[in-house]
Amino acid sequence: MDYSTISLQKEVSEPLYRQLADQLQQALARGDLRPAEQLPPIRKLAQLLSISPITVSQAYEELALMGVASGSVGRGTFLLPLVTAASTSQRPDDQPFSNAHHPSAEHTWMATLMTQTQSVARSARLQQLLQRAAQRWHEASPLINFSSGNPDAGLFALDRWHLAMNQAGVSLQSEQGRTPNILQYGASVLGDSSLRAFLVTYVQRYGIHVPMEQILLTNGTQQGLDLVARSFLLPGATVFVDQFSYIAALDIFEQYGAHLQSVPFDEHGMRVDLLEELLVAPQPQPRFIYTIPTGHSPSGACLSEDRRAQLRDLAQRYNLLIIEDDAFNELYYQGKTPVPAIWCGETEGRVIYLKSFSKTIFPGVRSGCLIAHPTLLSVIARRKQLSDRTSSIPLARAVFYYIDASAYEHELLRARSTYRHRRDILLAALEREVKTFGCSWIIPQAGFNLLLFLPAHLDEMRVVEEAAAHGLAVAPGYFFTPMSALKRQPALRLIFADKSPALLEEGILRLASALRILMQTGSGQDLPHFTTGV
Amino acid sequence: MDYSTISLQKEVSEPLYRQLADQLQQALARGDLRPAEQLPPIRKLAQLLSISPITVSQAYEELALMGVASGSVGRGTFLLPLVTAASTSQRPDDQPFSNAHHPSAEHTWMATLMTQTQSVARSARLQQLLQRAAQRWHEASPLINFSSGNPDAGLFALDRWHLAMNQAGVSLQSEQGRTPNILQYGASVLGDSSLRAFLVTYVQRYGIHVPMEQILLTNGTQQGLDLVARSFLLPGATVFVDQFSYIAALDIFEQYGAHLQSVPFDEHGMRVDLLEELLVAPQPQPRFIYTIPTGHSPSGACLSEDRRAQLRDLAQRYNLLIIEDDAFNELYYQGKTPVPAIWCGETEGRVIYLKSFSKTIFPGVRSGCLIAHPTLLSVIARRKQLSDRTSSIPLARAVFYYIDASAYEHELLRARSTYRHRRDILLAALEREVKTFGCSWIIPQAGFNLLLFLPAHLDEMRVVEEAAAHGLAVAPGYFFTPMSALKRQPALRLIFADKSPALLEEGILRLASALRILMQTGSGQDLPHFTTGV
Repeated sequence: MDYSTISLQKEVSEPLYRQLADQLQQALARGDLRPAEQLPPIRKLAQLLSISPITVSQAYEELALMGVASGSVGRGTFLLPLVTAASTSQRPDDQPFSNAHHPSAEHTWMATLMTQTQSVARSARLQQLLQRAAQRWHEASPLINFSSGNPDAGLFALDRWHLAMNQAGVSLQSEQGRTPNILQYGASVLGDSSLRAFLVTYVQRYGIHVPMEQILLTNGTQQGLDLVARSFLLPGATVFVDQFSYIAALDIFEQYGAHLQSVPFDEHGMRVDLLEELLVAPQPQPRFIYTIPTGHSPSGACLSEDRRAQLRDLAQRYNLLIIEDDAFNELYYQGKTPVPAIWCGETEGRVIYLKSFSKTIFPGVRSGCLIAHPTLLSVIARRKQLSDRTSSIPLARAVFYYIDASAYEHELLRARSTYRHRRDILLAALEREVKTFGCSWIIPQAGFNLLLFLPAHLDEMRVVEEAAAHGLAVAPGYFFTPMSALKRQPALRLIFADKSPALLEEGILRLASALRILMQTGSGQDLPHFTTGV
Repeated sequence: MDYSTISLQKEVSEPLYRQLADQLQQALARGDLRPAEQLPPIRKLAQLLSISPITVSQAYEELALMGVASGSVGRGTFLLPLVTAASTSQRPDDQPFSNAHHPSAEHTWMATLMTQTQSVARSARLQQLLQRAAQRWHEASPLINFSSGNPDAGLFALDRWHLAMNQAGVSLQSEQGRTPNILQYGASVLGDSSLRAFLVTYVQRYGIHVPMEQILLTNGTQQGLDLVARSFLLPGATVFVDQFSYIAALDIFEQYGAHLQSVPFDEHGMRVDLLEELLVAPQPQPRFIYTIPTGHSPSGACLSEDRRAQLRDLAQRYNLLIIEDDAFNELYYQGKTPVPAIWCGETEGRVIYLKSFSKTIFPGVRSGCLIAHPTLLSVIARRKQLSDRTSSIPLARAVFYYIDASAYEHELLRARSTYRHRRDILLAALEREVKTFGCSWIIPQAGFNLLLFLPAHLDEMRVVEEAAAHGLAVAPGYFFTPMSALKRQPALRLIFADKSPALLEEGILRLASALRILMQTGSGQDLPHFTTGV
């Protein structure tokens, strides 16, 4: 290929090395680069593109990370050979797609088709990074994974879930006699009415008072976000997001071509005062705000009640629509009740409220709900109908029996207490082991996440790599920021929810060792670090 | 509003009255028309737009059908008043969105947002039509519904489904001890491995031999279609479809901006010879074929084995991708085994295969699968991950226990025999009652549908209206054709699967009475029929 056609833009926040890696990957998809082809030597390509050799080295590293290249110092970098249909078929690996770049095209027509597919989403990269860390760690003690946002599997009440499935089976059987259409195509797109009727009462504890016609069952918050984006986000629509935000929401909004704008936040959540400066003036087409007000992901911050009120006020004055992702609102660590939702007190229908049962039942259940003004919901429901008609009736019925039980309240109490304890262990370990390196953090008020801010001079990817070499997988902050973000602070997301106290302590010790090495070798940015032989 | 800005196109197949109705509806959404405003008198608008008064009358009728206008002869037509959030909240109706046009916007910002949402999908219109028919029928005997594509609820084996849910609950509980990550976020996007492993063996009966890594679990065929469209259909992409096709597939393809091209079909399915004429020459970007080869919807035709082979051949020669929707392949009425899928024997990965369990378990289960070449599947799986991460694990596990049972085979046998018997009753009734009116049909070889071709001079919407007045709901053929279709034959879709023999007989008697009246009053196209007072 003609490498001089590569065009890198220094003005955008997407680092040069990732721009370069993306363009090389696209060339491969187009067929301009051939599988197993050798890439140009680092210094030569750097000279051609007038960039630093470190940037080229980092780009090659990124390609290795994405599973499309392999290389080692002194031997050059090569694109990986094709994965053919036959060899894929024989692979024992059950997850061929989450851990690797997609198998390359066997036929020209496939390559043509692939060129139109978008570059790898952050959530997929996160999984690749974990995979990569696991490959680098060869010690006897297992890799500690602080990077995946899972609840603690030990808290899953699967005996109760079994009971709920059984009750759902019985109830569908008996209901079928009375209302034979309940399992047919004509049933409501909004989903099982038992669960929706129960949710009417249940969400009142968050301060939300709506009839069941305003509740749409979804396959989790992910689908809720997708439906909202699909309903209302025209390409180029503006979505304001916290400076660090939920990885899959960013993926979705970017997939629909939205323009993401970062809003700074602090320990009280989104800086609503700074948001107002960004808004300048109302626009005829509504703009969007996406936030996770309770247990903000990835920092765990909680939006204060004052700011919630200010946000509602801004929405009305500047013609905004608020997408309120309340996935973590039941896992709060202060007080005795959840903070009332942003929804409460907003009178013009400008809030779309998303709730998930993934964090409090288990992620694999795939169930949640979306609450909106009837006019907005009518549009969203049509998209739902085209997407998958309605959410599974038997599944929703099981969720209903699971959460309509006093045991569920006890499980929530137990989860809050377990996670709060782990948060405290993590906070103490951070205070003891890494504060001296100049790290800082917000104390999580809810949820599974802590965001560790690194000293400004450290390259977070170097820290991620070094941590992996010490047997610790952590997620870099840039995965949680919009591609268009102008500047960002190096950071790491640490998941504490599914770790025992011993693992939390050990994990932070490993992180401290990694930081110590990087601090000793200088700024962490000066040395080339292309040492992979994956 | 300035009605002279309305622009109607006589060259396209979308009838003038529907173009007019759509534009009036858009004007309402934009705010150019106000709720409760009176529309111009029929003759006046007809004169202004140089069209027939009948066309205007039909357009007003269509608006009434869509729930946005009401009128009666001599009193004028008015747009309906706004549905406010409060009044919607108090409605007892549990399905506010499937039966009516969306509640109108209370605020200007909402109206602005609504203008960007697309016009009503056919599947929503179909439900409105049924609702409308029910409103028109005031006799003691119930309305007979030939319009909704449901299986027979009497065949649902809910006792077995209960058992399967129970088994799923037990197995998840025991598996959790061994593989604690099975219900976490990191689990495979492809879905529960028990069900996928079973499907590897199961789909061999259709002649499909793939490893489980090529099987993606979906929430039914609807989601499969949506994911394929989302992955590969760029706006303007060409999709060849049968001249009459599956309503929700057309909705989805049009939503993604695809250009639909009709291919004639006969009792042996798609006319592959005529398709070749349409193809002209291969194009660099793959074009798509969508077909339901076994039990074609809405005609019940089966694609012959010869034509399947020709289709595979065409796909390779003209660079096509085949979307094979095999929802009905287990409900065949000839022979002892399903016809081998188009998939079989295709060697370049040009077939994407979709299977649903909705027809043989029940529609509300929302479970199916998608099978594709690994390269294509990797792209589709990423879209799945962004849509809803993965299909519900407990639900898939229950489906696994349900279909991995010898009782399931017996249920399939019983379903085939029940539906074949009903088909035969319907065929005999049609032969006896409506053949004399010049109607014709293809004998369904599989599935739930029969497509009744009406004499060319009859307006099918008049037949739909007259049938409703006789207590019979039927779906008009135009719902099943692409908007861009140049010409089409008037037709009705009749669903026989969920009707007892007595209802089938009575339904066809009602249809015959309706046809008799229309034949007596002339061509069925000459008289204005704006008589609604909904």
